[in-house]
Amino acid sequence: MKKQNTNENTFVKKVSYNSKSPLDSMRTFAIKNHIPIIGDEVLRFLELILSVKKPKNILEVGTAIGYSSAAMLLSTEANLTTIEKNHELYRKANENLISLDLKNRVNIILGDASDVLKELAEDNKKFDFVFIDASKAHYLEHFKIIEPMLDEEALILFDNIMYLGLLAGRRSISRNNTIRYRMQELIDYCFNNENYKTSLLQAEDGLLVLYKLVSSRA
Amino acid sequence: MKKQNTNENTFVKKVSYNSKSPLDSMRTFAIKNHIPIIGDEVLRFLELILSVKKPKNILEVGTAIGYSSAAMLLSTEANLTTIEKNHELYRKANENLISLDLKNRVNIILGDASDVLKELAEDNKKFDFVFIDASKAHYLEHFKIIEPMLDEEALILFDNIMYLGLLAGRRSISRNNTIRYRMQELIDYCFNNENYKTSLLQAEDGLLVLYKLVSSRA
Repeated sequence: MKKQNTNENTFVKKVSYNSKSPLDSMRTFAIKNHIPIIGDEVLRFLELILSVKKPKNILEVGTAIGYSSAAMLLSTEANLTTIEKNHELYRKANENLISLDLKNRVNIILGDASDVLKELAEDNKKFDFVFIDASKAHYLEHFKIIEPMLDEEALILFDNIMYLGLLAGRRSISRNNTIRYRMQELIDYCFNNENYKTSLLQAEDGLLVLYKLVSSRA
Repeated sequence: MKKQNTNENTFVKKVSYNSKSPLDSMRTFAIKNHIPIIGDEVLRFLELILSVKKPKNILEVGTAIGYSSAAMLLSTEANLTTIEKNHELYRKANENLISLDLKNRVNIILGDASDVLKELAEDNKKFDFVFIDASKAHYLEHFKIIEPMLDEEALILFDNIMYLGLLAGRRSISRNNTIRYRMQELIDYCFNNENYKTSLLQAEDGLLVLYKLVSSRA
């Protein structure tokens, strides 16, 4: 999940996402109720990369109200498996995806991400696109459970990856040392991994993008 | 072309691009001779998006010493048409691409970008990936000549797009008002254009990424 972006210093004139979209009412609801959703820059990049990749099976960790879920379904013809641990958000996501007539392509699972991911792995599920936007402290733990489920040439996006890195330049982060340490572990794990091409983008609070290389081994 | 990135404030610990690569000697040469080349973050994103897109015909505006040209050829099986107006850089790019045994997939054209692009358009050339990294003041002018040459689902990347936007927050930009105005014109043109999905990423000095939508018209 994603805090609202407050960095206004990046453009001469801020680009606004003013096109009408089925996502509008969800965005309005999220803002009114202080529910963190992906920002416009991440949304646009997500839509663009999905248009290029054209995945068949998407996995999302962190449904919230189903805003990014809906965006991913509307940009593809894929099926989506998405995990949310909060019952109230799970209920709202179901309601939103039904109202957009997207429920037939999505499986929203209520539960702890680690537990649900382990079950999906045991069921030999496979995914060619993964969007991880949940508890930052668990990104690497979740990713290691997800790895055996990745198709070759899968794309993996982690949202908010530089959140604490950016904060580091501004104020004390002693409270957050554990999370910061774990985010650094994730970055090191990905960049030192010959199975992936890795790119770190400063879209809002940072996107870590991985592309799983075709294995050269038998 | 790209000035060296000096923003160190984005990560807890800077990620270094330390894998051995055929591009290493070109990078060393560029640094030693103060020739601007794409930075590591843009390089990594370029390699990743090319792996996903798998283009057949790439157009590059601004060859410089052939560093990004080589990166794009090494990440794909595509043919590359690239334009450079400086004779010394053109000569060096040829030398570099021959030494990497990539010359058979590349056509380096010496000349003014606007003139060369018009000739390519007259010859009905088509491209599915375009990397624009030349004179910022001419980005929109160049892009309008390129547009009829774009295949459906083509990807277009403009490098250094937020260069002056970022500077705007730091010091007077009165000297650069014309370029700033033209960059804003480009951004407005792209974001208000129904032919493209558009994403603006803060990879180093900013990447503008466009995806040409499949036309719904006959």
